[in-house]
Amino acid sequence: MQKPVNRQVILKSRPSDVPQAENFAVVESAVPTPGDGQVLVRNVYLSVEPAMRGWVSAVANYSEPVAIDGVMRSLAVGHVVESRHPDFQVGEVVTGMFGWQDYAAVDATTIQRKVPDNGLPISTALGVLGINGLTAYVGLFDISLPKAGDTVIVSTAAGAVGSCVGQLAKLQGCRTIGITGGPEKVVLCREVFQYDEAIDYRSDDFESALSRACPNGVDIYFDNTSGPVSDAVIRHINVGARITLCGTASITRWDPIPQGPRVHRQLLVNRAKMQGFLVFDYVDRYAEALEMLTPLVRDGALQYREAILEGIGQAPDSIASLYRGDNLGKCLIRIAPDSI
Amino acid sequence: MQKPVNRQVILKSRPSDVPQAENFAVVESAVPTPGDGQVLVRNVYLSVEPAMRGWVSAVANYSEPVAIDGVMRSLAVGHVVESRHPDFQVGEVVTGMFGWQDYAAVDATTIQRKVPDNGLPISTALGVLGINGLTAYVGLFDISLPKAGDTVIVSTAAGAVGSCVGQLAKLQGCRTIGITGGPEKVVLCREVFQYDEAIDYRSDDFESALSRACPNGVDIYFDNTSGPVSDAVIRHINVGARITLCGTASITRWDPIPQGPRVHRQLLVNRAKMQGFLVFDYVDRYAEALEMLTPLVRDGALQYREAILEGIGQAPDSIASLYRGDNLGKCLIRIAPDSI
Repeated sequence: MQKPVNRQVILKSRPSDVPQAENFAVVESAVPTPGDGQVLVRNVYLSVEPAMRGWVSAVANYSEPVAIDGVMRSLAVGHVVESRHPDFQVGEVVTGMFGWQDYAAVDATTIQRKVPDNGLPISTALGVLGINGLTAYVGLFDISLPKAGDTVIVSTAAGAVGSCVGQLAKLQGCRTIGITGGPEKVVLCREVFQYDEAIDYRSDDFESALSRACPNGVDIYFDNTSGPVSDAVIRHINVGARITLCGTASITRWDPIPQGPRVHRQLLVNRAKMQGFLVFDYVDRYAEALEMLTPLVRDGALQYREAILEGIGQAPDSIASLYRGDNLGKCLIRIAPDSI
Repeated sequence: MQKPVNRQVILKSRPSDVPQAENFAVVESAVPTPGDGQVLVRNVYLSVEPAMRGWVSAVANYSEPVAIDGVMRSLAVGHVVESRHPDFQVGEVVTGMFGWQDYAAVDATTIQRKVPDNGLPISTALGVLGINGLTAYVGLFDISLPKAGDTVIVSTAAGAVGSCVGQLAKLQGCRTIGITGGPEKVVLCREVFQYDEAIDYRSDDFESALSRACPNGVDIYFDNTSGPVSDAVIRHINVGARITLCGTASITRWDPIPQGPRVHRQLLVNRAKMQGFLVFDYVDRYAEALEMLTPLVRDGALQYREAILEGIGQAPDSIASLYRGDNLGKCLIRIAPDSI
């Protein structure tokens, strides 16, 4: 039998904005041997996040930039194939920051959680029941503070986080308006993610469609984009509005900081709040969040979409593809069969 | 004896930005007769606020714009000279939205509060123990949430609100940095208002002086200006920072909305909050605030400055004068003797 190799996607050069395929290389190395207290994980799905743009950037961010020639940082889900830690058994499914590679030898602290057999595909541990669902949950319930009757606008409304925010807000009795790009996603927003209204920001009619969609103003804006979409939404905020900053997908470069309309007066006059958050600060809420989200997903009350790329060779271009808006739903890379 | 007249300052035309003397006229009318349930107040001090720019603007704001030919809206403090309401007696000192005029016949609901004889000049009811002190109190304690050891930056640091914020934050154990305009105010900030550092935003050296003043970053920014000063401060915010929006003194026109560096990324990466507030939303906190502030003022632990203009003829130019930075301290217009 051929000795298995560890295929790894490493960062070859630092992009100035959205990382492209040529910024990465796929290399092969030996499968690592877990040390004492470590676990060897065989990754099955690798995650692709918009936030990865920040992780490879040298500009100040919430984490150290990925090193040149280092394995690309990534959430992944996989099987324990060797364990030198008493809490983990071979065959268990785990998720954590295992990187874009086949095998990761990791300390127990690197493992975010064991993925229970809940009757759902293990890929959900990276999306609706992973970072995206958790982001939606804490962003909505801890920062946006929805009340029944609120008008809630979500940008990148069909995306992995946005679609979850929209559905959770609707379940709270809010009126939901999704902003998305292209007619296919507009249909998805209305028919699958149950938005009361869905608006295509690429249409010439965008600003007037937005005005028509929120005749009573906006109480919550879940902002995944920044940029012109956010500039349009802020003109409609109500007194006491909450603008939750979750991502800045529409801005490809922050160095130098781009110009836009100043927000101070709108926030002041409306006694409104604009607040950023980071899901990794809320680890102590994950269990509670998954307890709410898992039955909703299982019952079909919380819909999700996945775009699964096949093979690790797809990884280098995957972040750029996300920013091109090529895919519908959570972007994942499958590098091994679901079950071993 | 000559029958007294009621001199009134009315709005003659709507300015496009900071109201100038020519936007107002002083007219004379008969002293009004209080109706049943009303009180006739003889104003002693009229207040001049930066916020008055918004009150006369046709652009969306938190209150209806002052009508053309209407008496300029204003807080004032004065004596009850006639009462047809059982709760108010002739000779009592009261404060409220009495307008820029000698006499106001007002409903009891227009009276914000009776000013007790606390051993301090009644003018303080419009400043450090009025709207400015109350604004500082709720903005700092309800929105900025200071903790001992926090670095707090205040813009318009020598102003009626800013000077109070700086001193209250210092009393909470914060390190305070005041940003102000001109060497005279820098000295006032350091020597009277007890800022740990004071910086002149007009100096060529402003940005590097700011960097030197906050080597450990900024936890709270009490923003009275917007504009380039705020653009410089936000580059220094720490994780979890609170930016409290209290005023936008450095921006003279909001229509069209001026451009500036987008704040989204800084707020997101630092999980920071930017929030506007309006003191009039916190009427139920005024008593508690005055209970804290009054003894501090009486004991000299909370210093204040007043710039008193003599005579109602000074009113038309007074807002423009405020924006020119002509005066030190709370701007008031005295139109009658303190005691009757």
